[in-house]
Amino acid sequence: MADVSPAPLAPGSVIGILGGGQLGRMLAMAARRLGYGVQVYEPEPDCPAAAVADSQTCAAWDDLAALDAFAARCDVVTFEFENVPVDAARRLEATVPVRPSPLALEKSQDRVTEKAFLNALGIATAPWADVPDADALEAALAGFGGRGLLKTRRMGYDGKGQMLIDSAEARVAGNALLLRQPCILEGLVAFDCEISVVAARGADGAVACFDAARNVHRGGILRSSTVPAGVPAELVSAAESVAARVLDALGYVGVIGVEFFFDGDRLLVNEIAPRVHNSGHWTEAACLVSQFEQHIRAVCGLPLGSPHRHSDCVMENLIGADMERVPALLAQGDVLVHLYGKRETREGRKMGHFTRLSVRTER
Amino acid sequence: MADVSPAPLAPGSVIGILGGGQLGRMLAMAARRLGYGVQVYEPEPDCPAAAVADSQTCAAWDDLAALDAFAARCDVVTFEFENVPVDAARRLEATVPVRPSPLALEKSQDRVTEKAFLNALGIATAPWADVPDADALEAALAGFGGRGLLKTRRMGYDGKGQMLIDSAEARVAGNALLLRQPCILEGLVAFDCEISVVAARGADGAVACFDAARNVHRGGILRSSTVPAGVPAELVSAAESVAARVLDALGYVGVIGVEFFFDGDRLLVNEIAPRVHNSGHWTEAACLVSQFEQHIRAVCGLPLGSPHRHSDCVMENLIGADMERVPALLAQGDVLVHLYGKRETREGRKMGHFTRLSVRTER
Repeated sequence: MADVSPAPLAPGSVIGILGGGQLGRMLAMAARRLGYGVQVYEPEPDCPAAAVADSQTCAAWDDLAALDAFAARCDVVTFEFENVPVDAARRLEATVPVRPSPLALEKSQDRVTEKAFLNALGIATAPWADVPDADALEAALAGFGGRGLLKTRRMGYDGKGQMLIDSAEARVAGNALLLRQPCILEGLVAFDCEISVVAARGADGAVACFDAARNVHRGGILRSSTVPAGVPAELVSAAESVAARVLDALGYVGVIGVEFFFDGDRLLVNEIAPRVHNSGHWTEAACLVSQFEQHIRAVCGLPLGSPHRHSDCVMENLIGADMERVPALLAQGDVLVHLYGKRETREGRKMGHFTRLSVRTER
Repeated sequence: MADVSPAPLAPGSVIGILGGGQLGRMLAMAARRLGYGVQVYEPEPDCPAAAVADSQTCAAWDDLAALDAFAARCDVVTFEFENVPVDAARRLEATVPVRPSPLALEKSQDRVTEKAFLNALGIATAPWADVPDADALEAALAGFGGRGLLKTRRMGYDGKGQMLIDSAEARVAGNALLLRQPCILEGLVAFDCEISVVAARGADGAVACFDAARNVHRGGILRSSTVPAGVPAELVSAAESVAARVLDALGYVGVIGVEFFFDGDRLLVNEIAPRVHNSGHWTEAACLVSQFEQHIRAVCGLPLGSPHRHSDCVMENLIGADMERVPALLAQGDVLVHLYGKRETREGRKMGHFTRLSVRTER
């Protein structure tokens, strides 16, 4: 479990980041601005985060010698994606604090474990069933009116590893997926909108939530986050309370993203992401302390920053060919563009994002 | 002279930065956020900017082979301090665009050249005299009522290389300084306040000024910058017009800092700094596009960002033992702390800065 109120790490201390994508890159830059050193552990060479780190350990997640050497160079270790193997995080934890606790990885890496964890806390989700085989899938579909979303229990992100089961053909494809990987079936939810809360818990147990965002996904990938979310205040309060309950239950230290469906009536948790979250990128433009600095503050035992938002805003992802929009966006005075330094533009690849600010409407 | 409206540099292009201090570091991070690669040229090993650069060329300013190799790795070269040797910048310019033009270095490195340049543009400065020797110093002092500030013509910054001449003893010390280095004598100005304008000129000739700051210096080092500056609007307009005149006269591309004395009546230019400026650090907290991104945009041929300020603010430097204030500052919700990652805290050394935001009072 997370250690309780550790001494704040002094400037010059070294933060290890597991994973070297754009989230790691933005965490690393926030760490730099607080005077910390940065080490990155990422099996892929030449990753976005390495460009702003002191060095990258380019090794496999099960390379125990590399993990031990990495731990020896760090004063605290954190992660930028939820699919860091738990064993690697546990290995590091033996010699260096890992924040958030690997427990958060365990709970979020498997959709069955995650939903059982949430439901046990009294937090509503879409109806779901563990479907280890074709018979279980049939039974679950029958219970959900013949339709559902089949998702791999593990390693799904950005819409990967999931399919809609709503026909006999889809059922055949679903059974084929089941044979390859353990799956979960989720009942379909007719939702009005998706919102998310990016929240932080400090080493002292304090919780701070950034304002909820209303999110639009296309093809399983986040396209935009709008703040304020334009949903009733009591709904936002309820969502923040759910986020706080999750954070407390995990003894969490750091930033978490909690995604919700709102069906006009009920708030259902879609998933939790134990890391900084794409739907919180707007904070770098509309708040004094971004979600990235907030995470670094938490894992270093510093006080959390204020989540106060000075402006309204819309964040949009730049995905694949969206990069062609960049020149026009740079000419717009109300837009902050942020690119990730990825060499190769590919379809579906997150290349950057931008945030458009406007004067704040709600106080 | 600066090239006219070059094609914008595409993401992935490489920006070379001459000088590796905190200004270079903040420029490098801004370059990263726009997807650029960063090379740093800095004779001192292990410099603040290197931590976020792809690599540092650690070589002397007169190492022609190192300069040529550096130029070959860069698509554009800029600088983070005004004392980069002009010969080095000229050498680079032979094979890679250097922005701003080395002409700006020439004009600002020598206080006599700088003041003559400004006065020739019709821009008022404190009275001054070139004082090559003791006789010239005597004559100049007589003209300034027996008192003046003696400054080395070159390499002065943060109050170094200057002394008040107001007594016989000081005159002796002044004559000793004169024997070591060429000097200028400046008449004393009884000023109400110091303000600065951080302005940018794009490759297309567009000029954008961030709001003027009111600055407080102690011991020759900037302590704080307050925005708005609390001086009459027509004064700010006049200061911005001076900055624009300087930028245009130099065919300048990038960010410049122009420091003024205001004596309650007249606006006098104290000095120009052909680089991002300490009195513009607040822009990272109170504007969507910081002075650092503004400079990168300019030198890469991108459109300038809007200098709009969403909040009022005060920036304070963290100098030497001020680092002890950091824990308390981190606990204040209206403060953004920025540290430079310098290992060793020394008296008079700029270790970081912080910006305190408040709601904007003037629109």
